[in-house]
Amino acid sequence: MRNSSRSNVDPFIVMDVMEAARQMEEEGRHIVHMEVGQPSSGAPVGAVRAVREALGSDDPMGYTVALGIPELRERIADLYRRWYGIDLDPGRVVVTNGSTGGFILAFNALFDSGSRVGIGAPGYPSYRQILTALGMEPVNLVTRAENRFQPVVEDFSGKNLDGLMVASPGNPTGTMLDRPALSKLIHAAHDEGISFLSDEIYHGLEYEQKAVSALEISDEVYVINSFSKYFSMTGWRVGWMVVPEDQVRVVERLAQNLFICSPHVSQLAALASMGCDDELRRNVEIYTANRKLLMDGLPKVGFPKIAPPDGAFYIYADVSDDTHDSRVFAREILEEAGVAVTPGLDFDPIRGKTTLRFSYAGATEEMEEGLRRLGDFMERRSCAKRRLA
Amino acid sequence: MRNSSRSNVDPFIVMDVMEAARQMEEEGRHIVHMEVGQPSSGAPVGAVRAVREALGSDDPMGYTVALGIPELRERIADLYRRWYGIDLDPGRVVVTNGSTGGFILAFNALFDSGSRVGIGAPGYPSYRQILTALGMEPVNLVTRAENRFQPVVEDFSGKNLDGLMVASPGNPTGTMLDRPALSKLIHAAHDEGISFLSDEIYHGLEYEQKAVSALEISDEVYVINSFSKYFSMTGWRVGWMVVPEDQVRVVERLAQNLFICSPHVSQLAALASMGCDDELRRNVEIYTANRKLLMDGLPKVGFPKIAPPDGAFYIYADVSDDTHDSRVFAREILEEAGVAVTPGLDFDPIRGKTTLRFSYAGATEEMEEGLRRLGDFMERRSCAKRRLA
Repeated sequence: MRNSSRSNVDPFIVMDVMEAARQMEEEGRHIVHMEVGQPSSGAPVGAVRAVREALGSDDPMGYTVALGIPELRERIADLYRRWYGIDLDPGRVVVTNGSTGGFILAFNALFDSGSRVGIGAPGYPSYRQILTALGMEPVNLVTRAENRFQPVVEDFSGKNLDGLMVASPGNPTGTMLDRPALSKLIHAAHDEGISFLSDEIYHGLEYEQKAVSALEISDEVYVINSFSKYFSMTGWRVGWMVVPEDQVRVVERLAQNLFICSPHVSQLAALASMGCDDELRRNVEIYTANRKLLMDGLPKVGFPKIAPPDGAFYIYADVSDDTHDSRVFAREILEEAGVAVTPGLDFDPIRGKTTLRFSYAGATEEMEEGLRRLGDFMERRSCAKRRLA
Repeated sequence: MRNSSRSNVDPFIVMDVMEAARQMEEEGRHIVHMEVGQPSSGAPVGAVRAVREALGSDDPMGYTVALGIPELRERIADLYRRWYGIDLDPGRVVVTNGSTGGFILAFNALFDSGSRVGIGAPGYPSYRQILTALGMEPVNLVTRAENRFQPVVEDFSGKNLDGLMVASPGNPTGTMLDRPALSKLIHAAHDEGISFLSDEIYHGLEYEQKAVSALEISDEVYVINSFSKYFSMTGWRVGWMVVPEDQVRVVERLAQNLFICSPHVSQLAALASMGCDDELRRNVEIYTANRKLLMDGLPKVGFPKIAPPDGAFYIYADVSDDTHDSRVFAREILEEAGVAVTPGLDFDPIRGKTTLRFSYAGATEEMEEGLRRLGDFMERRSCAKRRLA
């Protein structure tokens, strides 16, 4: 059968790395997972308990209304009061099929075929692929190290964009936009008639200062978030969006048709997860320890060029002294060191050839073992190089 | 904020009916639900038990691979052996986010902005809305009563289509395409270079003869199915597609980016549901009784023009003698009779003005009560008319 040109999207390289790692594990090798963007913890205990109780009741768990279970929307609105001191109308909250469900709804609500949407490079690869798959045009904004890989106004101004998507903390860098930086972007976008979208999926996972929500600055933005990261519920596929009041009905109609509703069982789990802060904060303490471990350890074992991450659970490393092909380098590390890492090409189609992403979402002992293995590997590698020289 | 033109889709009218019914129930009225396209039963007992067990294990239920849990794909392939005698490679099975997730993947894999996709009218409304939302062009094929509201070759031939979507059993009519009729459509589509998609979501719910799968006729088709209807798991949002071998990698790349994966918990439930045939067959026995009740009863209470449905759990009625506005008529029935029904406008933008859909997915006692109420209502209505005349 003939395929559409829009279907010609790149694979998600990290998924191929995961598959290669899985095969090696099947063959009996132990792999340290520093590739994967998901917590090693499952859903909070309270969320699991709530689901087990619901399954024991006579609730048939049919379709929910398209915008989501009302109590969940209220509880999410309440999160904005608790986290940011914002008074948010629950009517503006849309429960989605993970953050990817939010992207699909947001992009279709705002953009037409051929619309130009600016995204930072490096950045989350699926922004680019989803836009392409929907017949829109992703516009790579090549961010700079001195801006900590976040876009600034001059990166997009005058580029005739219809939309601008930012992420703070960002993936793969973990760097954040502070309030003045985010304000400048939002105001400049509004001035140029550009729809502004803020991916806040890593909020709650921050180490030096709190992340700023775009909703603290303007109501005229789409904010996308998820229960996958802080709430540790990746596989449940549930997230949310906050949209301007006049956008709710448009998004509702799209959601009715494109998703019908988010999984009922996952919405119940999400609702209960919002009462599990103690457990979730313990997860953050693990990430905090892992982050310190890697920020100290990576430079010592041979990865000195890293940007200190403000949030999320990633460290992005410049490995241009070691390789011109991050895919080959990552494969070498997986096979020889037994450590799975993600080649930067997932995040930046050009400069990603010379970068790697390390995820520290795993257990601390695994991170320690990973550092040891990376150290041995880099040591062997530089000896071999010296011998060749 | 400015909205895209593609976001200008119709609301799903049945959802508005459901909301109006819910409000009346809140006010203390009892409503008979003949509007809703979902079983009143929940997931099979065995599926619920499997989920409870998994929740008690130490499986964190993270992301699965994008194409779905391998055991589930194998079990689905096995269904084709059991139901149709087809030997299907599990590698061609894609687990999706309900059938809507399948539509999104299929349409994006096959069609570009502006591509023309033929769909029968009357038909499932979301085909039209999803195509519109993705920037494609739905082409209504006005089917005829003498063809039992299924498309025939002359309905689409020469219309310059890129794709053709059929559904057998169909919604809202429940009518099926037999093997010669389906063969003709598939071969004609192939001859004209039209991609063929078959929505088989109501398979397993058939009353006179077994539904025919497009895969019995050709491998060069996309088949879309779901755990929502026969398997009684609407709210879990899990379904599947079978695609030609050379389409798997394209669909996988799209799925990695657009969905990451289907809900892990729902995939586990789906896997277990496939071992629950005894319970699921009892559900079908209820639909069989309900169908007989309504096919006998509806003509007697004032709805004589119905097409006998071969499958699904719907009866489509021509009410042109009673109304020129099915939306108003449905509201009258809801408010005066306390029976929720769906106006035909959801399914056919023109002729749906004079049709209604009755769903018999509910309990048999409810259907009996519904018939009584509809009878009283139509009786009062015709008396009032006679008095006016």
